[in-house]
Amino acid sequence: MSSHPRVRVAIVGATGYTGAELLRLLLSHPHVEITALCARDKLTPRASTMLPALTGLVELPIEPFDADVVARKADVAFCALPHGASIECVRSLRARGVTVLDLSADFRLRDPSVYARWYGAAHTAEDLLAEAVYGLPELHRDALRGARLVAVPGCYPTASTLPLLPLLASGLARPEDLIVHALSGVSGAGRSANASTHFSECAEGVRSYKIAGTHRHTPEIEQTLAHVAGAPVTITFSPTLTPMTRGILSTVYARPSHEQVDVAALVEAARRYYASSPSVAVLDAGMYPDTLWVRGSNRAHIAYFYDARAKRIVAQGAIDNLVKGASGQAIQCMNLACGFDEAAGLRAPAMFP
Amino acid sequence: MSSHPRVRVAIVGATGYTGAELLRLLLSHPHVEITALCARDKLTPRASTMLPALTGLVELPIEPFDADVVARKADVAFCALPHGASIECVRSLRARGVTVLDLSADFRLRDPSVYARWYGAAHTAEDLLAEAVYGLPELHRDALRGARLVAVPGCYPTASTLPLLPLLASGLARPEDLIVHALSGVSGAGRSANASTHFSECAEGVRSYKIAGTHRHTPEIEQTLAHVAGAPVTITFSPTLTPMTRGILSTVYARPSHEQVDVAALVEAARRYYASSPSVAVLDAGMYPDTLWVRGSNRAHIAYFYDARAKRIVAQGAIDNLVKGASGQAIQCMNLACGFDEAAGLRAPAMFP
Amino acid sequence: MSSHPRVRVAIVGATGYTGAELLRLLLSHPHVEITALCARDKLTPRASTMLPALTGLVELPIEPFDADVVARKADVAFCALPHGASIECVRSLRARGVTVLDLSADFRLRDPSVYARWYGAAHTAEDLLAEAVYGLPELHRDALRGARLVAVPGCYPTASTLPLLPLLASGLARPEDLIVHALSGVSGAGRSANASTHFSECAEGVRSYKIAGTHRHTPEIEQTLAHVAGAPVTITFSPTLTPMTRGILSTVYARPSHEQVDVAALVEAARRYYASSPSVAVLDAGMYPDTLWVRGSNRAHIAYFYDARAKRIVAQGAIDNLVKGASGQAIQCMNLACGFDEAAGLRAPAMFP
Amino acid sequence: MSSHPRVRVAIVGATGYTGAELLRLLLSHPHVEITALCARDKLTPRASTMLPALTGLVELPIEPFDADVVARKADVAFCALPHGASIECVRSLRARGVTVLDLSADFRLRDPSVYARWYGAAHTAEDLLAEAVYGLPELHRDALRGARLVAVPGCYPTASTLPLLPLLASGLARPEDLIVHALSGVSGAGRSANASTHFSECAEGVRSYKIAGTHRHTPEIEQTLAHVAGAPVTITFSPTLTPMTRGILSTVYARPSHEQVDVAALVEAARRYYASSPSVAVLDAGMYPDTLWVRGSNRAHIAYFYDARAKRIVAQGAIDNLVKGASGQAIQCMNLACGFDEAAGLRAPAMFP
Repeated sequence: MSSHPRVRVAIVGATGYTGAELLRLLLSHPHVEITALCARDKLTPRASTMLPALTGLVELPIEPFDADVVARKADVAFCALPHGASIECVRSLRARGVTVLDLSADFRLRDPSVYARWYGAAHTAEDLLAEAVYGLPELHRDALRGARLVAVPGCYPTASTLPLLPLLASGLARPEDLIVHALSGVSGAGRSANASTHFSECAEGVRSYKIAGTHRHTPEIEQTLAHVAGAPVTITFSPTLTPMTRGILSTVYARPSHEQVDVAALVEAARRYYASSPSVAVLDAGMYPDTLWVRGSNRAHIAYFYDARAKRIVAQGAIDNLVKGASGQAIQCMNLACGFDEAAGLRAPAMFP
Repeated sequence: MSSHPRVRVAIVGATGYTGAELLRLLLSHPHVEITALCARDKLTPRASTMLPALTGLVELPIEPFDADVVARKADVAFCALPHGASIECVRSLRARGVTVLDLSADFRLRDPSVYARWYGAAHTAEDLLAEAVYGLPELHRDALRGARLVAVPGCYPTASTLPLLPLLASGLARPEDLIVHALSGVSGAGRSANASTHFSECAEGVRSYKIAGTHRHTPEIEQTLAHVAGAPVTITFSPTLTPMTRGILSTVYARPSHEQVDVAALVEAARRYYASSPSVAVLDAGMYPDTLWVRGSNRAHIAYFYDARAKRIVAQGAIDNLVKGASGQAIQCMNLACGFDEAAGLRAPAMFP
Repeated sequence: MSSHPRVRVAIVGATGYTGAELLRLLLSHPHVEITALCARDKLTPRASTMLPALTGLVELPIEPFDADVVARKADVAFCALPHGASIECVRSLRARGVTVLDLSADFRLRDPSVYARWYGAAHTAEDLLAEAVYGLPELHRDALRGARLVAVPGCYPTASTLPLLPLLASGLARPEDLIVHALSGVSGAGRSANASTHFSECAEGVRSYKIAGTHRHTPEIEQTLAHVAGAPVTITFSPTLTPMTRGILSTVYARPSHEQVDVAALVEAARRYYASSPSVAVLDAGMYPDTLWVRGSNRAHIAYFYDARAKRIVAQGAIDNLVKGASGQAIQCMNLACGFDEAAGLRAPAMFP
Repeated sequence: MSSHPRVRVAIVGATGYTGAELLRLLLSHPHVEITALCARDKLTPRASTMLPALTGLVELPIEPFDADVVARKADVAFCALPHGASIECVRSLRARGVTVLDLSADFRLRDPSVYARWYGAAHTAEDLLAEAVYGLPELHRDALRGARLVAVPGCYPTASTLPLLPLLASGLARPEDLIVHALSGVSGAGRSANASTHFSECAEGVRSYKIAGTHRHTPEIEQTLAHVAGAPVTITFSPTLTPMTRGILSTVYARPSHEQVDVAALVEAARRYYASSPSVAVLDAGMYPDTLWVRGSNRAHIAYFYDARAKRIVAQGAIDNLVKGASGQAIQCMNLACGFDEAAGLRAPAMFP
């Protein structure tokens, strides 16, 4: 099926949700051999002890991170560590020539002063920032080909910018006055157990958090939108926790640039924009994206509505936060970086129901 | 505890979710005796057959609706029927002198032409419209005292207008450019089983429906806001189905009327506005409403945020759609109509977790 | 409504789930005034900060436990602490004359050697064990009247013994060869967050734990059954975690004592046995208990089936683990201890849906 | 990757959950080309209209069933129709030489009189029964090679017999006195919406149904166990609905044939029995199967416990009811029937979380 030799891949941070999801997806990837698993805790001689879903499928150990070992065993490393913890790991791997897909926030913001303001600490690897490519293939496909350090986007930014990009690129929507109301499943909070991820306090409740300009994905979304709009963008962003495991449904409110806008024009612009993007489906007018329809897949479903009474565009994007919002997108970037087909290993449809 | 004689109460539409919830709440009401239960189907000699939660607690039959029988057995009737089906039931009961709390949409819109436009049929009881009082006690408390026909508000309108009323009444927010993004639990769709309420298609998915000016609660919300603003209001409204049984979390985006607005001012205005309202709690600055914190109670939790970067007010209201959004609010209106304490039978805190 | 003076009540361990549930239920109790709240952490000048459901309803502080203070402020104390932590608290309160309802396991097992075997530590208050009454009102109603120390049963034992008691007392079932397969909601694991209560790892999975004679509720169930059977009882017990917040559904398999048994006889025996028990409803033959039908209420629904092919009785009990399985049952015991109506404050039906 | 030509496959009953799952799995199968989709309703020129997860992935129409058309387009047909409806469809396809994987119950029971007793109608295709092979590859692997009509087992029978087969085959457990307590996700009830699948009535409740010898999977389980035990088997079977979409956790209680049994012996016997079965993993002693660990995969996790106090074996099996319990198992059978590797297209690990 393929003439590519398999690349050897390491996963650093293998025991969190995005690490586990990388394992799930890479096991079916035609051009990949998983050769090393590292983590900061939950070390074990057999990965399946920590991740019983892999019983009989993966028998690698989960070991402490050692850059020399990883560089010897792997050509490509996925770093699925918390922000802050990622910088030194990435530096050590890049110094040894390993291609790195970094899933943390550490290399996403181009401007270190913005990083410092939102993450509360000076960026300690500005040299690497220059090398890093922002891993939204639908926007930076060419730059990702052959990239050696990829900053994989956050889940909210992916779901929120995908429906907006065609509108800003085409000029159909105005870049000011944008509101992003985004619903996330609980796995977005990571595998750490705390009050806000306790089943009993999630299962029958919804609540927002870090709204009104306080969530760290705000500047990341703005950076991408500004890149396309060609001007600074300020959004109002409302992340909201909903009782499901996976999924983000992001609703974007925007003003049309003129009053003749209609849904057909919005859909048409988006279909043109994403014509060569295997991971984005623009739904027919009248259909509503549902996170269930993309769960487990590397696909974004986007849709457009026009409120003629209020003269406002409503656009929605649905993704699986762990796939197109993290691990799947990282693999999509790896495919481009390594010269594989962009969709290699990522063609499986969503699991419904 | 009370010198009130008990009023005799009938529930018409006892087998749906709001009917069942009326039963639950009225069973603990100090001034009420439930004397008749009617429904269109699921008739049974013993209510507990249809509603096993009542086993050993309620042994009334569920009978077909007969206005004469209801008028003989009850002083007050709650009509929990679908819109359209309610009008004739209400007319027949009012003709016999029964006080009616109508939970349908049939008497909510003051202007019959608006009703006709959104509900697709001419209103056939314009005479009764004049008598009907819109049952939002926080806004129409005085008119509800002694009322004989109350149009109990919809769940979305209750959750969405409560946080906005103080802002519009005080002039802190501007009445144009309003967006309402509201999340609802599945019970809001009623007890009828269909694809969109199937567990397997709800449990791990979120999706919007009837957005961009198409949901029938849109004119109801606008009517209430216009009443307070003193001018027509047009909103963008996005109802969204989330995988929980009960609850609405409504997020409202509004423009401040001047730039010196801050959260403290918003909270202060709301606390003043709701000072004598037992069913509304204005949360401290920094706290987020959670539908879990109001589940099962007749309380609304509202909270305010200010996005200084984008110069936008974000206000939220959380209610239980079946209680403050339907049956509890109907009882609150009954209390006012009958001269009871507004909170009688409605003081129970939420069930957490 | 009542000529009883209100008893002054303290809750020790107010911030866990059973503590919060005591607050919810006691706020509606006609003969109770809550006067003190204590906890080991989450201390706060205003309880509603930790339990926002109480905003505007309870403004007591949550303070560290001090036996002198509690004894001065309260006549009755509910101790909702983990086992082990409870013994000293109970001792100090009993020494000061406070009536104690203890929700921990510390005083449930009559035989200290059994306690030592299952809880891994010698019992340090054998003197108090003699005073303690096991708080299953359906079995020990008379002993509970006027009791000063009540060991409130565990959730699994309550749900599992209630359907069996009438069968063993009547001799319809044999006391050997008993299997208890019980499903629990996640709140049964308490408010502490850990991997096994993480929403993402509960919401779409079921798994057993501590089966085959290893769960600590095993000897408690056996003790109660042996008391009724008049002989030692050994059960096989399989607790299983299911993705719901509240509820226990316990299925019991038993051998009939003779082959002429049928469902009618089982139901009849149970109805006779529970004729004067306000918290137990024996369902009609053919109906299945559902945890949803008892959620939030202090009621147990029990039902009987007979597998004539395999000659085996199948009995089921459904309760809300936080109410009839903990806090509600504790209040039921308090009612008996204080001479109130057994059902005072506990009459509310379940919240459906 | 493969020298096999692709077989052309039709799915009859493509719009139900097992039909949708066949589509999901077959799209990734290396030796399959999907050529026809049929259904009884929800007909559409584009499958993705009914199954939006397939948007951009499958553009076949969903058409009414026509045996001639299916026989012309496909070599192999999966019939995912309700029992009763399947018989004629299977007959017409077999008459035209199409290999059939039937997911209904119509060809599972070897004895037509047992079928008549449990399904309430005489079997109308006894001739085909002789040809049908029961599709549990772990038991009938050889008979499945080259089979032309396969009766794919039910979900409960798969989860319940897999842990028992090694015990009965090895003689470690006795074939009498067996109890099967099985928990199922809601998708097991199919895609039809009714009261028992309504989110609001499932999400926070568990309840059994058709217990004590009344569920139609009872004779199917007994038939398989009797085959291995070499003697008639009668079980007590308790199916129970739990609030999750996918998964079955079946707990089996059995008596050991002698008292020296221990967990190590049980695990060892099972590992030997399933040594060449790619879809069964026998967990290490002490691990509990979790439906979440097999969700979306064609794998069964089985585990063994021994209750030495009560001298009883407790065995558990966890599967995804739509995969190893239906569509995945059907594909596994197809692989054997067509001479492919048994695990072709079925190697993906579970989706966690």
